[in-house]
Amino acid sequence: MQYPSKLIEEAVNQIAKLPGIGRKTALRLALHLLKQNEEETDELAFALVNLRKNIKSCNICHIISDSEECTCINLHKDSSIICVVEDTPDVMAIENTAQYNGLYHVLGGVISPINGIGPDELNIESLIHRIKSNPEIKEIILALNPTLEGDTTAFYITKKIKGLNLKITAIARGIPVGGELEYADEITLGRSIISRRQYNEGE
Amino acid sequence: MQYPSKLIEEAVNQIAKLPGIGRKTALRLALHLLKQNEEETDELAFALVNLRKNIKSCNICHIISDSEECTCINLHKDSSIICVVEDTPDVMAIENTAQYNGLYHVLGGVISPINGIGPDELNIESLIHRIKSNPEIKEIILALNPTLEGDTTAFYITKKIKGLNLKITAIARGIPVGGELEYADEITLGRSIISRRQYNEGE
Repeated sequence: MQYPSKLIEEAVNQIAKLPGIGRKTALRLALHLLKQNEEETDELAFALVNLRKNIKSCNICHIISDSEECTCINLHKDSSIICVVEDTPDVMAIENTAQYNGLYHVLGGVISPINGIGPDELNIESLIHRIKSNPEIKEIILALNPTLEGDTTAFYITKKIKGLNLKITAIARGIPVGGELEYADEITLGRSIISRRQYNEGE
Repeated sequence: MQYPSKLIEEAVNQIAKLPGIGRKTALRLALHLLKQNEEETDELAFALVNLRKNIKSCNICHIISDSEECTCINLHKDSSIICVVEDTPDVMAIENTAQYNGLYHVLGGVISPINGIGPDELNIESLIHRIKSNPEIKEIILALNPTLEGDTTAFYITKKIKGLNLKITAIARGIPVGGELEYADEITLGRSIISRRQYNEGE
């Protein structure tokens, strides 16, 4: 596509590098900015640069944060459970459920040889160190995505920590609430039958 | 949603102001930037600020451009036709067809009383001035979007310029190439029948 301006072309090139944004959407976004006040663009640009420059991650749990001190430890947290997740949005998703009150540990990804990510690229060593140095911890919940890479990572972590006298659990897989059996895939439905649980009234 | 960092929250707020981008997508984009080199974010931010700060539009045709001189006039253009469009992306779309070799005039929008846009907010007066000051111009093509606002604007412009001894045309409306009659809406199909044309072999 021919652009009438080098400035537009450069902006489109840069915006289209973002995931899920093609060149047509990038052009639409660039033209949107041109219709707004100049301050709007300045604020957007500043927020991005400021984020990238000043973001930290917690030294203990690796959640991204404004400082290097852990924001996940506070007086109201149950510090005997650690929930292991792939990335920070998973923490936010679990926090939103209001069903969990323990600590987190962000791996920063999952083991994926295709993408060149091995256990050493992830925060697994620091998880083991964290467990060993804190005898208070009684349970590790593996809340990884139900993919091949997620399963591999869960298997690796389990092997590494199984001698440490911990309860190791994984989040349940089954039919989503509001889903229909008829349209569920065989593997999910199969798992939900294998993992069936005693029916309790009032639950 | 609770964000683990003020920096992330501010970036999400700013990104989510863009059209068609919700808060979940904004978070995904912000986290994507965190995984890239710092230069990537700097380049993106610079391209946006530079675009907003330095963009010009041509004094004659109002296409956005790097300078205030018209980029649409060059020696190979047919300067007897002006194609009137709503905005710069329409120019790019028409240029991509390689079916038109004349000049353009960008209105910068369409008449839309709901959004507070009247004829005075658009580049209509400058179009009339451009036609009157240049006797070479023989034809005006109205290439506006087939919406109520586009039709209103076309009607307004036609009324304003009909005494100037010009051929005024509008782009054809009908069944899109590759479309199916069965699924076309009644208005489009009806228009395509009214605007039927002599069948020429080999066309």
